[in-house]
Amino acid sequence: MTAYREIRLKSRPSGLPKAENFELASVDLPAPGAGEVQVKNLWMTVDPYMRGRMNDVKSYSPPFALGKAMDGGAVGEVVASGDPGFKAGDLVQSGFGWREGFNAAAATVQKLDTMGLPPQTFLGAAGMPGLTAYAGLLKIAALKDGDVVFVSGAAGAVGSMVTQIAKAKGHTVIGSAGGADKIAFLKSIGVDHTIDYKAEKDLSAALTRAAPDGIDVYFDNVGGEHLEAALTAARPFARFALCGAISMYNATEMPAGPRNLVMMVGKQLRMEGFIVSSSWDMMPAFHRDLAQWVKEGKVTWKETVFEGIDKAPDAFLGLFRGENLGKMLVKLA
Amino acid sequence: MTAYREIRLKSRPSGLPKAENFELASVDLPAPGAGEVQVKNLWMTVDPYMRGRMNDVKSYSPPFALGKAMDGGAVGEVVASGDPGFKAGDLVQSGFGWREGFNAAAATVQKLDTMGLPPQTFLGAAGMPGLTAYAGLLKIAALKDGDVVFVSGAAGAVGSMVTQIAKAKGHTVIGSAGGADKIAFLKSIGVDHTIDYKAEKDLSAALTRAAPDGIDVYFDNVGGEHLEAALTAARPFARFALCGAISMYNATEMPAGPRNLVMMVGKQLRMEGFIVSSSWDMMPAFHRDLAQWVKEGKVTWKETVFEGIDKAPDAFLGLFRGENLGKMLVKLA
Repeated sequence: MTAYREIRLKSRPSGLPKAENFELASVDLPAPGAGEVQVKNLWMTVDPYMRGRMNDVKSYSPPFALGKAMDGGAVGEVVASGDPGFKAGDLVQSGFGWREGFNAAAATVQKLDTMGLPPQTFLGAAGMPGLTAYAGLLKIAALKDGDVVFVSGAAGAVGSMVTQIAKAKGHTVIGSAGGADKIAFLKSIGVDHTIDYKAEKDLSAALTRAAPDGIDVYFDNVGGEHLEAALTAARPFARFALCGAISMYNATEMPAGPRNLVMMVGKQLRMEGFIVSSSWDMMPAFHRDLAQWVKEGKVTWKETVFEGIDKAPDAFLGLFRGENLGKMLVKLA
Repeated sequence: MTAYREIRLKSRPSGLPKAENFELASVDLPAPGAGEVQVKNLWMTVDPYMRGRMNDVKSYSPPFALGKAMDGGAVGEVVASGDPGFKAGDLVQSGFGWREGFNAAAATVQKLDTMGLPPQTFLGAAGMPGLTAYAGLLKIAALKDGDVVFVSGAAGAVGSMVTQIAKAKGHTVIGSAGGADKIAFLKSIGVDHTIDYKAEKDLSAALTRAAPDGIDVYFDNVGGEHLEAALTAARPFARFALCGAISMYNATEMPAGPRNLVMMVGKQLRMEGFIVSSSWDMMPAFHRDLAQWVKEGKVTWKETVFEGIDKAPDAFLGLFRGENLGKMLVKLA
């Protein structure tokens, strides 16, 4: 038996989650059975979309069960294997996050080819957030030469990849983020115009100053006032990729939508929501492009790291306070 | 000299226009010069989009000038011609509405082939409103087999064509309109489920009852609460064609947008605004299909007619009180 700790959902949050919605527990795992592997997790991810799974509502991913370990992306190492396809020491990726280790059917974990990158990159720049940026820009927003691109949440895991992919493809990029550190980071990765939304009273005016001729693409990570500003600044036929709305995930009442949505008619705008799981087929192309961009020094990333499974709820809550620069991660071993 | 009356914009309305924003004037026209025609208008159209042109703001069509006749679609008869391409008695279509007659360069009017239909049809079912319905459904909403279609303003000039085109193509159609007469009309043209929005307290609940399995396409003519209901009822990957938002055209303050816009992400919805002038190239295909549908008895239309140029402002204002069943027209001769 080996003891592993895990984080369970103790109660469903209303509004912003609190520490008492989570509980730390320990489980003793036997050796893996035939066809199973035992994995010790090295890294786990916390992501804004997980907030939705804490509610008991039907959505694109099922709600977390009360009293059980939550799940999410993780990278780990096989420590014992009952399956001929895996051996101790193999690096694997799985959906069994929020726990130090687990036993699972071999078919539910994937061997990880790190392409020479640190393994936790596959929870961020080279993983789900990176593919989200890539698919959102190239497929949903149908990025084309000359487009001026506006990104909100631009210093986050997805946003910082959006800005860099757009820059690598030669676009003018306007990035919005909150606070001097994030703005400095955006400048360091070559964003053309930055907006510190915490320092701006009128986001529409700030965006119009940054993009006096308007924007062609908006990659929306936050919703709310940013979306309203983007509608105002949009050029005719602009395309909006709606990736998420972190400003609304903890809302207990439905917030009003953009007051200027009607602009979509006269400007002939397109707005499309998407989730990354509809674009897994783009992963090989993304990894090919990413390898090239990393080699050319065009794409880099930041990580904000909490250490220890007991800190995972703090890392998660930090997302909603904007505490992460780049990818928010929890180091488990 | 021949005297013709016309309606001029006297002052710019704030909110709902009033009679005093318009003035009736008379002009004496000489015989047409070389290369010109003199046209006596038979019919003119009033359309909701004209409200936007009464404001002094940049939009997809320029604002009406104060103290001058407004313009808009009209069908008329050439009464005198200084151009070899036209002769007295020719039926023509033009953008010189809101007046009983005019002189204009021959190149600015088009001869009208009525395809055996009454000429005023080309201001409605067979004209701009019909093409709006056709392009919005087929191109913008990318209608495909099996789609469940929801249309607001379903008894109006555009909406009644949307419902009938969707029915002609074999779809289940839910139409919303206000009042018993309009609902009876919708039933008479084969709409599967009708919603009298004036009689419903909760539009989302009404739509969910009408479409328990959800909708795939929403053709939006009104905005506001209807858009919110459509977001709630939308199936994954539903497409919304945003044609206009008559509920907002007279708003003096920007109304709040749909509170549930964030549903676009999880349901992966697409929303696209459009104006018909981007789809003139579809007119020949539309006329071919329309001729066939009329022959098969699948498409019909209603007209609400005011008589005399002096009644044109009343006809226009009636649009915002929902007084029209089908196309609102002014008969001028």
